[in-house]
Amino acid sequence: MTVSREVELEGHIIDSGMMQTSFGIIMDMGGAFEVEEFQIGRHKDAESYAKLLVTADDQETLQSIVHELHQNGANPADPKDATLEPAPEDQVVPKGFYSTTNHPTQIRYEGQWLSVEDVEMDCAVVVEPEGGPDGEPRAYTKVLNAIDADDLVVTGEAGIRVKPPERPRDQEGAFGFMQGGVSSERPSETTIGNIAEAIEETKAEDGTVLAVCGPALIHSGAREDLARLVREGFVDMISAGNGFAVHDIERDLYGTSLGMDTESLDHPRKGHKHHIYTISEVIRAGGIEEAVETGVIESGVMYECVENDRPFVLAGSIRDDGPLPDTITDSVEAQNAIREQAHEADLVLMLSTLLHSVAVGNCLPSTTRTVCVDINPATVTQLLDRGSAQAVGMVTDIGTFVPMLAEKILDEE
Amino acid sequence: MTVSREVELEGHIIDSGMMQTSFGIIMDMGGAFEVEEFQIGRHKDAESYAKLLVTADDQETLQSIVHELHQNGANPADPKDATLEPAPEDQVVPKGFYSTTNHPTQIRYEGQWLSVEDVEMDCAVVVEPEGGPDGEPRAYTKVLNAIDADDLVVTGEAGIRVKPPERPRDQEGAFGFMQGGVSSERPSETTIGNIAEAIEETKAEDGTVLAVCGPALIHSGAREDLARLVREGFVDMISAGNGFAVHDIERDLYGTSLGMDTESLDHPRKGHKHHIYTISEVIRAGGIEEAVETGVIESGVMYECVENDRPFVLAGSIRDDGPLPDTITDSVEAQNAIREQAHEADLVLMLSTLLHSVAVGNCLPSTTRTVCVDINPATVTQLLDRGSAQAVGMVTDIGTFVPMLAEKILDEE
Amino acid sequence: MTVSREVELEGHIIDSGMMQTSFGIIMDMGGAFEVEEFQIGRHKDAESYAKLLVTADDQETLQSIVHELHQNGANPADPKDATLEPAPEDQVVPKGFYSTTNHPTQIRYEGQWLSVEDVEMDCAVVVEPEGGPDGEPRAYTKVLNAIDADDLVVTGEAGIRVKPPERPRDQEGAFGFMQGGVSSERPSETTIGNIAEAIEETKAEDGTVLAVCGPALIHSGAREDLARLVREGFVDMISAGNGFAVHDIERDLYGTSLGMDTESLDHPRKGHKHHIYTISEVIRAGGIEEAVETGVIESGVMYECVENDRPFVLAGSIRDDGPLPDTITDSVEAQNAIREQAHEADLVLMLSTLLHSVAVGNCLPSTTRTVCVDINPATVTQLLDRGSAQAVGMVTDIGTFVPMLAEKILDEE
Amino acid sequence: MTVSREVELEGHIIDSGMMQTSFGIIMDMGGAFEVEEFQIGRHKDAESYAKLLVTADDQETLQSIVHELHQNGANPADPKDATLEPAPEDQVVPKGFYSTTNHPTQIRYEGQWLSVEDVEMDCAVVVEPEGGPDGEPRAYTKVLNAIDADDLVVTGEAGIRVKPPERPRDQEGAFGFMQGGVSSERPSETTIGNIAEAIEETKAEDGTVLAVCGPALIHSGAREDLARLVREGFVDMISAGNGFAVHDIERDLYGTSLGMDTESLDHPRKGHKHHIYTISEVIRAGGIEEAVETGVIESGVMYECVENDRPFVLAGSIRDDGPLPDTITDSVEAQNAIREQAHEADLVLMLSTLLHSVAVGNCLPSTTRTVCVDINPATVTQLLDRGSAQAVGMVTDIGTFVPMLAEKILDEE
Repeated sequence: MTVSREVELEGHIIDSGMMQTSFGIIMDMGGAFEVEEFQIGRHKDAESYAKLLVTADDQETLQSIVHELHQNGANPADPKDATLEPAPEDQVVPKGFYSTTNHPTQIRYEGQWLSVEDVEMDCAVVVEPEGGPDGEPRAYTKVLNAIDADDLVVTGEAGIRVKPPERPRDQEGAFGFMQGGVSSERPSETTIGNIAEAIEETKAEDGTVLAVCGPALIHSGAREDLARLVREGFVDMISAGNGFAVHDIERDLYGTSLGMDTESLDHPRKGHKHHIYTISEVIRAGGIEEAVETGVIESGVMYECVENDRPFVLAGSIRDDGPLPDTITDSVEAQNAIREQAHEADLVLMLSTLLHSVAVGNCLPSTTRTVCVDINPATVTQLLDRGSAQAVGMVTDIGTFVPMLAEKILDEE
Repeated sequence: MTVSREVELEGHIIDSGMMQTSFGIIMDMGGAFEVEEFQIGRHKDAESYAKLLVTADDQETLQSIVHELHQNGANPADPKDATLEPAPEDQVVPKGFYSTTNHPTQIRYEGQWLSVEDVEMDCAVVVEPEGGPDGEPRAYTKVLNAIDADDLVVTGEAGIRVKPPERPRDQEGAFGFMQGGVSSERPSETTIGNIAEAIEETKAEDGTVLAVCGPALIHSGAREDLARLVREGFVDMISAGNGFAVHDIERDLYGTSLGMDTESLDHPRKGHKHHIYTISEVIRAGGIEEAVETGVIESGVMYECVENDRPFVLAGSIRDDGPLPDTITDSVEAQNAIREQAHEADLVLMLSTLLHSVAVGNCLPSTTRTVCVDINPATVTQLLDRGSAQAVGMVTDIGTFVPMLAEKILDEE
Repeated sequence: MTVSREVELEGHIIDSGMMQTSFGIIMDMGGAFEVEEFQIGRHKDAESYAKLLVTADDQETLQSIVHELHQNGANPADPKDATLEPAPEDQVVPKGFYSTTNHPTQIRYEGQWLSVEDVEMDCAVVVEPEGGPDGEPRAYTKVLNAIDADDLVVTGEAGIRVKPPERPRDQEGAFGFMQGGVSSERPSETTIGNIAEAIEETKAEDGTVLAVCGPALIHSGAREDLARLVREGFVDMISAGNGFAVHDIERDLYGTSLGMDTESLDHPRKGHKHHIYTISEVIRAGGIEEAVETGVIESGVMYECVENDRPFVLAGSIRDDGPLPDTITDSVEAQNAIREQAHEADLVLMLSTLLHSVAVGNCLPSTTRTVCVDINPATVTQLLDRGSAQAVGMVTDIGTFVPMLAEKILDEE
Repeated sequence: MTVSREVELEGHIIDSGMMQTSFGIIMDMGGAFEVEEFQIGRHKDAESYAKLLVTADDQETLQSIVHELHQNGANPADPKDATLEPAPEDQVVPKGFYSTTNHPTQIRYEGQWLSVEDVEMDCAVVVEPEGGPDGEPRAYTKVLNAIDADDLVVTGEAGIRVKPPERPRDQEGAFGFMQGGVSSERPSETTIGNIAEAIEETKAEDGTVLAVCGPALIHSGAREDLARLVREGFVDMISAGNGFAVHDIERDLYGTSLGMDTESLDHPRKGHKHHIYTISEVIRAGGIEEAVETGVIESGVMYECVENDRPFVLAGSIRDDGPLPDTITDSVEAQNAIREQAHEADLVLMLSTLLHSVAVGNCLPSTTRTVCVDINPATVTQLLDRGSAQAVGMVTDIGTFVPMLAEKILDEE
């Protein structure tokens, strides 16, 4: 005895890979299929449509398959309302909760399709029947630790529509090239030029650019050029760790980075003392903003953030010294602050930090443009795997990348 | 004014990705398409068929597109004979020569489809009208430096059929899992077990196993277990460099590897002298075989090769000491020896050497099973990218991999 | 006009490199020196003694030089009491505070040398004049965020003695080989055997073994063997992140790791749902211990920790899901918990996690034995650079390392 | 019963590490020592002197120890003439032959110290009693395969003096900083500025700059800037492989690199055909020089070499296509050509190729300045380990490094 279910695929389902992925899922997971209907888009702007009958040996397998198909944009053909179940306790999801992708998603509630707000991977979807501004229903994602007892959580697979991003029909604009993944075989300067254009485009459209920054930025001498980008408004928000901010400020207070004079390369002794003093001075001032205002800090990335009202999030970590008063030491609180930034961003620059880039990337919908730059190819690959539709990875030296990027944006205008 | 051409796709064209790739190629390269015919395979064992009309603005673009489609298995709908042009000089191809993929390929000659022999990437195809045993026509690949003046070389795109490997319908057998690419997130022991099974399977089918070996094998202590695999007949051929053989023999003559005692880890001084002595002794004996026969060499991988008639190829390199008399110092001659081994192999183990693995991989058809093992993920990725249909990559330590593999094959039988 | 100061070096100052380092420091930092006295140890067990007059152009340079010499074990020849200054505010150090090394350190207080307790890098030293059990003075390290206003903090360079570890005279015992840094050219199995011996030795001396564990341990299939080592008492404490524990428990609850069946390698779909369910179930139970006691968790590393009273610390991070109720989300609190474990440990196994290993390594004195294992050579190098006197690094696959280690310890007894 | 031997150390034996290394060697290898005499350099410009009596349990151990001490610059105190033995056969060294370091070396022959010519690692030293221009004796290195029967080869340890490079007393000039090894924590632009100065210095002293080039140089877009450096005379010689030259010329003939347009990034299809055509065209012309002269090649690195009489060596490899007629396919011949270039070079730039850099590095004395640039830290570390006294390593992107270097040298003059 077998069980079966109809699913539908719509859009550019062939060249987006949706069709191939769906066939693969069914076969990998031990199911079978019949193509009941198929209308192919006859030319490159026409959409296609397919209806598949998916068959499996038991209900559990069928459900797993349908779940996977779902995640990839194949929707059950028989739209019913989504099933809602109350969360049994705080931070506990009901059995069979629907775990989100990072793609645009809709939930069917009382016959209507609600767009899920704040789309983000691996979350639950909560429906508030009268949560909208005028008492209309709304649906939004919640991470596990934000679940409250009795939240109405979507379970099962019915009444959910996922829309994975499609391959752009045209290769126009800077991000046109950005499906290609990482390559160390691309010309570096040309690629940096394309990234510069993407930033300029985003700003021209009033978009928001978030830079996620690792400490290597400071050690490698890219600090002044990043500060210029912040000052001139090409970077709107900073997400980083305690170390990044301390190194940036140490450079201002002592002219050193980890104790080395960044100009003369003199005295390359591990001057960890400057690091501790820097934290100590900022604590004495009461925080970074206060230290800028009282003239303790006079230059750098954090300085430009304060002076130009660019918000920053500094997330704590177990390897921090100090930390600074501005650093959010609680990882859940820090995640919430990161999440807020991520949801506002239109383009994210991930600059030589795996930890913070993963944290930001976890909160991004697949529609946000991302640029990942790191000297380690494994880091770039891992970040691109999170599945942004418009991403470019570049394996390069942050110490030459940022100066070249700043030159292309600021000096060649 | 536009130009156009019909192409056909046949087989499991959706789940193999052929359809998606074809659409992508056309759009990327500035063309357009119309789907003139489409019959979808209704269930998982049924094949599909599509006929596309590809359009471009000029003949050159159209040709480039059709060439790319071709490489991916889409064939012109109007089969004509392949165009043949004589090579103008030795080592010079005629303009527009057809450059091969590593997939099974056929050439249409006087209305008949000839299977191209010795399929290998980036070669020319030469047709000998009466070259077969009974005077019938044959077609085979030739690398550039083997081209003789007046060889009949296939040019253009007409009369050529390429058959890229398809996704297996069933996941049976050890290599079933081997589409997944590299992952450091796979359980190591289970994966090694699967590779052991693949080797056993290949041997059970009277297949030939070629091991491509880097010097790290010896330094990391895997020598004895590899020697056992050679002795017991689970490795039939060895492809390596001069250094591998010298290290292997040094271990026999002096108990050291690069001067370090591999058992006690004593005296880790750079005893490069043993290395030079080893070469010197083998030269004195007249070669490896002679050194084994006269009792100079009494154990190890090279010893087992000689004793058990397992052929080996040692290819020279500009960083070699010596070299040994057995090392082929001319790179073209060495390639030819490697090519011969590669064409005989049914399963290739690429063990911690990028240079030699690339050289072997260049000569393999996409139908040969390959296993790539290296501690460096970039090496594994680069090797898997060569496009074997049945490949598994593993990022692991060769010094633990080979002992575990030998144990699973030899001790658990 | 120049200023000068006498410093003394004692011990095996030549072969420990102390003499060379001291000369290098003085010359690099723009100073000059005269060797006023020198008695060389005439044979390998005799100690040497040197008195240098260090000269510089100004007081500040001299102080920097003397500070650096100090960190490397050269002590001012004119012992005075250490200078103590009260901390001006909570978390603020007085100007010129002495920043610790990770070497055994003494402070001169009222003519007496006090051993500094809880030696750890980059800390301040606080003296409590009557802080000892019988009202005697004591000195101990404090990290910046633990400094309270009015703590008596050591400043300057006077009255401080640092004793960097010396090169062992004899090469006995398993850790004899452990000065050699990382090498992928060492035989893997022999090296694993040496590490097994070191663990057995540590346990034979009633020492404490701390394992710092990354999630790759679970994905790579090493979970069961690590659990055995915990159960059998060869691992006494675990330091890890939220992810490690969740993956370990997911394996118990669902037989999967990130959704993949770790035995059959089946269904390698990203089953992130199991991950979220696992956290949800543990939250419902009230924590890991409760989940073990109520039978929810029945096997694995965390299970063995609970069953056998092996303490564990789970530190939160901004990329966590959940987290589990046991995870310490505040990074300062988590550091304190890690610090406590680190101070108790006699041997630390750092297993495929950079973040947690750095956090633990920051808290270790240079006298604690450390073993660093990672597939990424850069990680191993970075961890060894922290400067343990008895450290071994191994670039290998954690998925083969742990099973081989467990076999050598548990099955070959 | 023990045996013993006196050795002497002279120079800056403490801060160069020679003393420490010597003590370490003796203890590691199971010997003992007594310091019979010791005069310490009292200030930073004074040299030191030590006489050690080294003792071991047997003659063989003593000899091994003395050999190691030797390699590190400790010389037997009782100078006798070097022992010479005729080579028994071509390519066979006499037992106990002396294997060279890459440091300046002298051989005592009939009471006189001869400087060994063409110093290079891992070679034999051959003495020609009347080989000098006026019939005086000379000594020079020979690699194993160049040894002729009856060559007088130095054996044993007597009559040999090795002078490892010392740490510079002063930190002046661009290479002052170049002892520090690799660091990704150095400011990139400042470091590139220092390398530019070193090249300018070398040229100002009429020195010769050799660039060892990998194909990534072309793919990453650095070709035009390297060509400028060749044209303007800041790079005097090129050492590369077949692939580098083909990619460079393909860029000229087709505007592509591996088939990708390097300006527009268009058509990133694997256009391997252009690669084969390029080789084919150069073969047709008869070689690179002929292709330049007949106008087939009109720009690029190889073009500038031909036009400006900068010699190049192209060494073959088993992964080459073609190869070009200029490529030396025999690895022994290629090594000889590389050796000749290496001996002429005063500064070597190793640019993103491990294979060719190792081959060149093997032939360099420790006194040649070397700059190693690669995106892979392991490559940089491995190259720096060869032991140049004046080396700088930089982990960066060759595609941004070369343009910045060319700008600093050519545009900021």
